[in-house]
Amino acid sequence: MWADEVEKRTERDYFGKVDIPKDALYGIQTMRTVQNLSFSGQLLKNYPEYIVSLAMVKKAATLANQEAGILPPSIGTAILNACDQIIQGNYHDHFIVDIFHGGGGIGTNMNVNEVLANLANESLEGTLGVYTPVHPVEHVNASQSTSDVCHTSIRLAIVRCFERLDHKLTKMHATIEKKSQEFMSVTTISRTCLQDAMRIRLGDAFSGYASVLKRRHISLRESVMSLLTINLGATVIGNGVGASEKYKEVVIEKLRDVSNMDVSKRDNLFDAAQNIDDLAHMSKELSLLATSLIKVAKDLRLLSSGPEAGFAEITLPSVQAGSSFFPGKVNPVIPETMIQSCFQVLGCDRIVQAALEHGELDLNIFEGMAGANILNGLYMLTNTSHSFTELCLKDIAPNEERCTELSNTFIPVIVELKEQMGYSAVSKLIKEHDRKSIKYLLNNGGIDHDTRN
Amino acid sequence: MWADEVEKRTERDYFGKVDIPKDALYGIQTMRTVQNLSFSGQLLKNYPEYIVSLAMVKKAATLANQEAGILPPSIGTAILNACDQIIQGNYHDHFIVDIFHGGGGIGTNMNVNEVLANLANESLEGTLGVYTPVHPVEHVNASQSTSDVCHTSIRLAIVRCFERLDHKLTKMHATIEKKSQEFMSVTTISRTCLQDAMRIRLGDAFSGYASVLKRRHISLRESVMSLLTINLGATVIGNGVGASEKYKEVVIEKLRDVSNMDVSKRDNLFDAAQNIDDLAHMSKELSLLATSLIKVAKDLRLLSSGPEAGFAEITLPSVQAGSSFFPGKVNPVIPETMIQSCFQVLGCDRIVQAALEHGELDLNIFEGMAGANILNGLYMLTNTSHSFTELCLKDIAPNEERCTELSNTFIPVIVELKEQMGYSAVSKLIKEHDRKSIKYLLNNGGIDHDTRN
Amino acid sequence: MWADEVEKRTERDYFGKVDIPKDALYGIQTMRTVQNLSFSGQLLKNYPEYIVSLAMVKKAATLANQEAGILPPSIGTAILNACDQIIQGNYHDHFIVDIFHGGGGIGTNMNVNEVLANLANESLEGTLGVYTPVHPVEHVNASQSTSDVCHTSIRLAIVRCFERLDHKLTKMHATIEKKSQEFMSVTTISRTCLQDAMRIRLGDAFSGYASVLKRRHISLRESVMSLLTINLGATVIGNGVGASEKYKEVVIEKLRDVSNMDVSKRDNLFDAAQNIDDLAHMSKELSLLATSLIKVAKDLRLLSSGPEAGFAEITLPSVQAGSSFFPGKVNPVIPETMIQSCFQVLGCDRIVQAALEHGELDLNIFEGMAGANILNGLYMLTNTSHSFTELCLKDIAPNEERCTELSNTFIPVIVELKEQMGYSAVSKLIKEHDRKSIKYLLNNGGIDHDTRN
Amino acid sequence: MWADEVEKRTERDYFGKVDIPKDALYGIQTMRTVQNLSFSGQLLKNYPEYIVSLAMVKKAATLANQEAGILPPSIGTAILNACDQIIQGNYHDHFIVDIFHGGGGIGTNMNVNEVLANLANESLEGTLGVYTPVHPVEHVNASQSTSDVCHTSIRLAIVRCFERLDHKLTKMHATIEKKSQEFMSVTTISRTCLQDAMRIRLGDAFSGYASVLKRRHISLRESVMSLLTINLGATVIGNGVGASEKYKEVVIEKLRDVSNMDVSKRDNLFDAAQNIDDLAHMSKELSLLATSLIKVAKDLRLLSSGPEAGFAEITLPSVQAGSSFFPGKVNPVIPETMIQSCFQVLGCDRIVQAALEHGELDLNIFEGMAGANILNGLYMLTNTSHSFTELCLKDIAPNEERCTELSNTFIPVIVELKEQMGYSAVSKLIKEHDRKSIKYLLNNGGIDHDTRN
Repeated sequence: MWADEVEKRTERDYFGKVDIPKDALYGIQTMRTVQNLSFSGQLLKNYPEYIVSLAMVKKAATLANQEAGILPPSIGTAILNACDQIIQGNYHDHFIVDIFHGGGGIGTNMNVNEVLANLANESLEGTLGVYTPVHPVEHVNASQSTSDVCHTSIRLAIVRCFERLDHKLTKMHATIEKKSQEFMSVTTISRTCLQDAMRIRLGDAFSGYASVLKRRHISLRESVMSLLTINLGATVIGNGVGASEKYKEVVIEKLRDVSNMDVSKRDNLFDAAQNIDDLAHMSKELSLLATSLIKVAKDLRLLSSGPEAGFAEITLPSVQAGSSFFPGKVNPVIPETMIQSCFQVLGCDRIVQAALEHGELDLNIFEGMAGANILNGLYMLTNTSHSFTELCLKDIAPNEERCTELSNTFIPVIVELKEQMGYSAVSKLIKEHDRKSIKYLLNNGGIDHDTRN
Repeated sequence: MWADEVEKRTERDYFGKVDIPKDALYGIQTMRTVQNLSFSGQLLKNYPEYIVSLAMVKKAATLANQEAGILPPSIGTAILNACDQIIQGNYHDHFIVDIFHGGGGIGTNMNVNEVLANLANESLEGTLGVYTPVHPVEHVNASQSTSDVCHTSIRLAIVRCFERLDHKLTKMHATIEKKSQEFMSVTTISRTCLQDAMRIRLGDAFSGYASVLKRRHISLRESVMSLLTINLGATVIGNGVGASEKYKEVVIEKLRDVSNMDVSKRDNLFDAAQNIDDLAHMSKELSLLATSLIKVAKDLRLLSSGPEAGFAEITLPSVQAGSSFFPGKVNPVIPETMIQSCFQVLGCDRIVQAALEHGELDLNIFEGMAGANILNGLYMLTNTSHSFTELCLKDIAPNEERCTELSNTFIPVIVELKEQMGYSAVSKLIKEHDRKSIKYLLNNGGIDHDTRN
Repeated sequence: MWADEVEKRTERDYFGKVDIPKDALYGIQTMRTVQNLSFSGQLLKNYPEYIVSLAMVKKAATLANQEAGILPPSIGTAILNACDQIIQGNYHDHFIVDIFHGGGGIGTNMNVNEVLANLANESLEGTLGVYTPVHPVEHVNASQSTSDVCHTSIRLAIVRCFERLDHKLTKMHATIEKKSQEFMSVTTISRTCLQDAMRIRLGDAFSGYASVLKRRHISLRESVMSLLTINLGATVIGNGVGASEKYKEVVIEKLRDVSNMDVSKRDNLFDAAQNIDDLAHMSKELSLLATSLIKVAKDLRLLSSGPEAGFAEITLPSVQAGSSFFPGKVNPVIPETMIQSCFQVLGCDRIVQAALEHGELDLNIFEGMAGANILNGLYMLTNTSHSFTELCLKDIAPNEERCTELSNTFIPVIVELKEQMGYSAVSKLIKEHDRKSIKYLLNNGGIDHDTRN
Repeated sequence: MWADEVEKRTERDYFGKVDIPKDALYGIQTMRTVQNLSFSGQLLKNYPEYIVSLAMVKKAATLANQEAGILPPSIGTAILNACDQIIQGNYHDHFIVDIFHGGGGIGTNMNVNEVLANLANESLEGTLGVYTPVHPVEHVNASQSTSDVCHTSIRLAIVRCFERLDHKLTKMHATIEKKSQEFMSVTTISRTCLQDAMRIRLGDAFSGYASVLKRRHISLRESVMSLLTINLGATVIGNGVGASEKYKEVVIEKLRDVSNMDVSKRDNLFDAAQNIDDLAHMSKELSLLATSLIKVAKDLRLLSSGPEAGFAEITLPSVQAGSSFFPGKVNPVIPETMIQSCFQVLGCDRIVQAALEHGELDLNIFEGMAGANILNGLYMLTNTSHSFTELCLKDIAPNEERCTELSNTFIPVIVELKEQMGYSAVSKLIKEHDRKSIKYLLNNGGIDHDTRN
């Protein structure tokens, strides 16, 4: 994982000793997690929002510990400074545990504890890897457990990560809404069961797209915001053992200050440790949004199919050559990329469901993996939401001539006739004449409306 | 499907003629759907809430048609009377189409149209199968389409069907809450990663169960209630073609009166026809509840495992012999039945997801199948919610002696020590002494608290 | 469940007494399962293949018990006769337990044991509900456990149930293969990313449908046949405790004779009790077939979309009126019904996956629910496979004129040009001329093939 | 993505011009894909097996083109040398497209085409970005399309990637098998429905684990090997337009030589382009293996639960401190990491299912995303299969004393009694005596075996 010539230091625990790069801010617990539990290639350092949220939680806890008189002032100050470094985005390369490791997040928490302890000790003229005067567990983790730290941090991370998607989604449905207005003057054909149906204004069809995406966006946002109800102070299983009353009284307020986010405490802290249904709920909202996006993107592909052998009612902007084989072919690659990102979101949600389904007893140890998959989904959907709007939606153009032609085909015309004559009379007419002659009659005023029974 | 000796009548349409039992209230369109599209063995008649909701919608439409002057008074009255018959629960045996047939619900709508037309005609001295004076499409279906009729009816059906589950769930979490209070005096051990952890009051653990189920219940209820926003008057794709202004103005108010339910109109009717995300949302809420129930039921199994070789902290009430093989063995069959019903709900939700995922263009034709699967899930979960509460939850008993014993094992004792000595000191202690001697020291006051570094 | 006036008898067990219809062949254990564990409305009696398979297993076990000298001859003979009654299809109404009850299938096994015991006792002049001389557990269930009985029976049931689907699938892909041959003379356009691509013979496209369905059919059949490797004789967990050596030696041979199926014994009987991956494997094969069918059915919908505003390359046979709204509209209801049955299969597979995922330790108690869902899937897919072939596939007709027209649109023509001139030259040409002029040039020999760079 | 100071060159296509790092081997099509379609952060360069497979396919195609006289010899040779560079692992940093981009893999194919063309041109004294004498489409891609190139390459990549997992799995079940032999002398208790059941040899339970994993391994391997049936030469949709007869005749043989893998041609090339069920089949096999691994890993957690308040029949090796909170607590982190990787595999399979489900018409454009997710799953499971064996399985130790104690608890003892006395007699005994007195009687020979009815 690193070149052999890197200088090392040695750290020890009850399981033996481990070599660690001399300048690493992490320590032996982190290294053990890396060596034992890495498997996915997705490392904590790829999740800056999560790292920052963890540091905010540690900062809030340290402030609360100070207020509760738990920490010697110099140690507290050193930890707070270390937290600020991480919050400002420094040293993220030292968060090297696999985001998905087993054991309920202990590796994540210890990675943070060790980095903060080493940073703090450095500022106090200590030596990396020695953990004095600042100890990763006794001081950095004081009054906390992996359980409440990770529970709280992953939720903050999701809320923070959602912010960008939030903007992209607002832009997306506003763009479709604008297109909808633009397309109100274009009449085309609707289809049910893929068969020709009545006339529809293209703008009306698009208004449906804007409407569903807006609804899912709002519903998603609500589920994200519910994640601000967290359990810091609950320690392992909810009863707060290991944390003083004073600490518990103030820690969430400290977190509100540190994060500038409207966090509040869960009503039942045992429930909070046992269950991750709030994450799963949010993940399901994300997958509902994704599925609705699949629908819209697939519709755009279908409506732009052709140019000659398809529906061809709209044209999507061309962004690149569509084929190594067909000169001049342009493919709907942006909607297809959107679809693919949505499939990935469905995959992430499947994993969150597994994490929920296999939770047990007093602590759901799969919470971290659920959270990381949600972050993955948010990240991907944010990217494609941007490109979908900017590279596709905003430059969709209707093929007006084609739309007009389609809106004057047999079935739409017959629907109007039915409005006048009734279903049975039209049915009779259809039975007795072929399509061509009906069209002829229609265009020449030759249908006797009194044929209605 | 019926004995050959049943007397028949013959009906005709453009596809030819079909024999129908002489006294059947349904007609040729229903028969064609039965013959062409039946496959699941689950028939409309097994879904009384859906039938009643369909009849309510037809009644509301007829009232609106009357007000709009669309229907001759005698015909309107006859249809209304027919609707009332169905609403009162009569003639449900005549709803014989497969609940899952293709084509976007046309078979369901036509089954209702034909039954109502025949009933109305009978009351007007007409002949079954002749459809005069009352015609299934021109009169019973006037101003409507399959699309808005089924969209509206399936949602009413779900809301109505949910009512029973609503009560059962309230009872369920209230029962657990009561148990939680009862068990507050019992201290046992908690576990994380299935390994011994700190002490916990059994009541606290159960309070988590009550809390998660209550939260999921409330969230589910909210999603169900959102289904009262419906699209009657939108006809096929949302633009209301085929319905007069007057009709559209009053039909939802009529439905509110007829159903005594707080229905309102969707903001965007094109969206309503295109998308079934509201159903999918509700289905996902149901599956979140189900998954939370799986967790609780599996915990109960684990906590009652034994009696000698398991956790054995609680005893579940015995309801029947557990084995054809082991005399005296009693199994947690009620929680297991709950788990199985929840698995079925997950299956239903998978189908709803498919229905959502494959929707296209102006009308999601899989809405009926989504709705029917939700009804199936509600039906099953209602039954098991009842038995879970009555045959299991309310008579769970703690094994107090065992719990006390567990709460005094090594790890919980060490946690208390850590509270006094700190993590490092206790870690050192553990490293230097074996478990037995630590316990001995603890029980004999032999640990020097000054060993803290 | 039955009218109050039905005459009752009373049976007793350690849990108390229960009233049972006087003439019922089932007994108290069955009634307890019905009262405690019913929830789905899907009863054992709706699964004749399963009932028959259970009776075959009981017959084989009884024959083996006789050979091992375990059963008094008169008792053995009476049980065998009772089994034959059930195998012949009699008394299936007495199998009233819910197919999905918890507890690992005990209710199913006891329902069979009680019906057979009562039938046997009746033939020996005994009294219903008294269980002497023939006892449901000691005699009918001798040498067996619920575990090996249900494991074996559900697999036989699936194999038997598959037979009909097997025939339907053979007919289905043979029909498509025939259509493929018919359509070889029709040239149309292919599409990639839904955009116009090169020419394709319609028959070639259909040959792909036949090919994939045949492959999935064969792969499914193989997975079904693997279910003939069963564990009768393993009793509860695989070590065969409770069964004599002689019995274990002969019971599978007896089953082979009784069932006329090529059953054989699992290599590792502990594995057999622990795991249901063979069922899950078969279920996944079924879902792969279903997903491939979704693809074919959706293609047929798309290729027949129109008639004027869609692809319109083929016409599906009309089977019924498609709309209560559009006179003359015909929808692809048969493919849509196929799609819906396939969605249901995906739902069943999700449940099987849950059953597999939550198995634990020495016995997967969710096996019965997995098996029942597979039977449901098989049942539904058998029905729609029949109608898909008979009401749709065999009468699909190409719209030859339209196909020819599409095959002469711009992109297919350009592909041919590229064959002669190369990609870059054609790209250049396209850049410099509009579509119309290229077509003109092409049709008038005006393209200088030496433009190739 | 790169610092602004990087020197650039400019390339042009019909959509305009794009700046590209001066020394980049990729070109404008690659850049457009990167700019338009990147969203996942998972880049082609992270998939060395896929890159190498793509280069092998290009090499085989070039050899076939040479033999068919399609390519000028110097160009062919230059391309072959470029392919060899990539196959040897060089220049992989230049494969920068997102692995999941839309458009059916065009970006992947063009990235390879451009890198090879630039490398070839460099060797012929050409200039990067000029594409003469070697052109990415006309020469490197000659006789090929994205469709057959990516179809073939992703399958080779999976087969190659599977090799490592193959070894790890063999080692895994061999290790469990060895443990099973070791544990044959340990008798413990089995459980059904988590309730105490009969005695079992610990080795027998473990033999079930070895057996299921071996079966799933073999079945997975078979499905992987089926991917060696590929479609190179089919070009876009299966009819091979754009490739000469000679090329098509020899290209697969060339690929066999180049790859040293036993590839063969698909029977129906239209089917091959339309469907990815072979990938989905393999993915489902992977998920079945994963689900079986979940079961085994969860069993190990449960059997090692405790040490005092759980089942405690086995001890898993300790690899690291289990808690930031409980000194001395060791968690089953290795099995938990295995479980998490398996959840990820289930997520990947969900995506593959979506890719299969949404395929349409002549080409499944989601094939690349299906393949990439399979590669992800293989990669993760390979890592955890290694650690599961090496850090957990091979050092599991039985707690013999505890096992012996459990095997002598009430139910196992009663089972033996039943063997002697029959079910009813033992049931009667249980009814009449409490557990303690039965145990006393048993240990003191006080049960009269003639109480049997």
